[in-house]
Amino acid sequence: MEGMIYEGKAKKVFATDNADILILEFKDSLTAFNAQKKGSFGGKGRLNREIASLIFKELKRQGIESHFIEDIDDVRMQVKKVRIIPLEVVIRNTLAGSTAKKLGLEEGKALPRPLVEFYYKDDALNDPFVSDDQAIIFGFAKESELQDLKFKALKINDILISLFHSIGIKLIDFKLEFGVTSRGEIVLADEITPDCCRLWDEVTHEKLDKDRFRRDLGKVEESYTEVLNRLRKLLEKREG
Amino acid sequence: MEGMIYEGKAKKVFATDNADILILEFKDSLTAFNAQKKGSFGGKGRLNREIASLIFKELKRQGIESHFIEDIDDVRMQVKKVRIIPLEVVIRNTLAGSTAKKLGLEEGKALPRPLVEFYYKDDALNDPFVSDDQAIIFGFAKESELQDLKFKALKINDILISLFHSIGIKLIDFKLEFGVTSRGEIVLADEITPDCCRLWDEVTHEKLDKDRFRRDLGKVEESYTEVLNRLRKLLEKREG
Repeated sequence: MEGMIYEGKAKKVFATDNADILILEFKDSLTAFNAQKKGSFGGKGRLNREIASLIFKELKRQGIESHFIEDIDDVRMQVKKVRIIPLEVVIRNTLAGSTAKKLGLEEGKALPRPLVEFYYKDDALNDPFVSDDQAIIFGFAKESELQDLKFKALKINDILISLFHSIGIKLIDFKLEFGVTSRGEIVLADEITPDCCRLWDEVTHEKLDKDRFRRDLGKVEESYTEVLNRLRKLLEKREG
Repeated sequence: MEGMIYEGKAKKVFATDNADILILEFKDSLTAFNAQKKGSFGGKGRLNREIASLIFKELKRQGIESHFIEDIDDVRMQVKKVRIIPLEVVIRNTLAGSTAKKLGLEEGKALPRPLVEFYYKDDALNDPFVSDDQAIIFGFAKESELQDLKFKALKINDILISLFHSIGIKLIDFKLEFGVTSRGEIVLADEITPDCCRLWDEVTHEKLDKDRFRRDLGKVEESYTEVLNRLRKLLEKREG
């Protein structure tokens, strides 16, 4: 295996012989609260790799480019090498998490329209929330890039709301990262998995995402498995 | 004296016989860090009332409407009653304070253009920073109002940069509040004083504002007095 060039909280990144191609390996570890809380379960890397692959492929079918190239094995995929834009793009359809807390509002409130938020990616600073103007003035992204990120994020949101609704899941909010390819194109990067989405069962309202770990609700593995099984059933049916 | 309707950290507000007119009384107290640090000095209310009056009058001469009507005495002024828009509008010309800290950047860095920030006015929540989109979606202001606040804030910034430069002071950043009058007009409200501005001497770089209290630098009273004396000398010369 080629040399590891980066180890993150949930993935390892390896170089390949091709300077434009990297390998992502999904780890079994789970972290929350900027890695102050740590955990793991066997098979988590496989679940997330498979969920991410299914979603990247579905987005591609609907016209959204990502860094995903192809699956390698249970826990690894080939991706395009990109320069990551240092902004976490959070899209909220229903209020939850840090924004609910910050504003003293109850979780579960539907928003009149999707809210796009930017957080400056810097673990040492605890990923601070920034406004559009701050992101531009401090050079995290250009104004035109921000507009592009918002446009793409909202389009991905539309697709994912509908995808998850097809499997009885409400997409509450999720986090995206984007990168710039060697050809200067902005594409979706990182991953879309229950690690970075809030997914609530439409009928039981049960959480099917990392909040089960964050908030010690139990059944973490079962929930990730449930999301994968439902996705797989839907997308295999579509393909078949 | 008419009945007090509100006591804030640095001012008291009284009703008058006229439903459209209030009286502001400037107190001698100083607070910082959301009132976790408290202090006061004799004459502080008078200094701030006089600085605020001089600035409101100068802004009026330059076409900026505020809630200021007229002075009553050393510590009191008559103002129009307004519905306060629940956003603190912060304008930064040079990086300092909470934004420098949040982004891990050094204080004193000049910004390529003035940065306008909004903070949701709520002491219990510690006045959280909000993006334009959050302010609109959570109903703190309408989109058109936000645009108006930014436009007015930048115009006030231009006037104040020039005013303070005339008296050898660099305007680092400052906080404004705006209100809506009974006629539906958005006007500058609250106060502009060393309590809510960062003012650095252009030659010595000495701080002449509330950071002297916040950071225990001493000479708080002397600095407020210095700002008033320089302003008074300039504006009296202009009038004479």
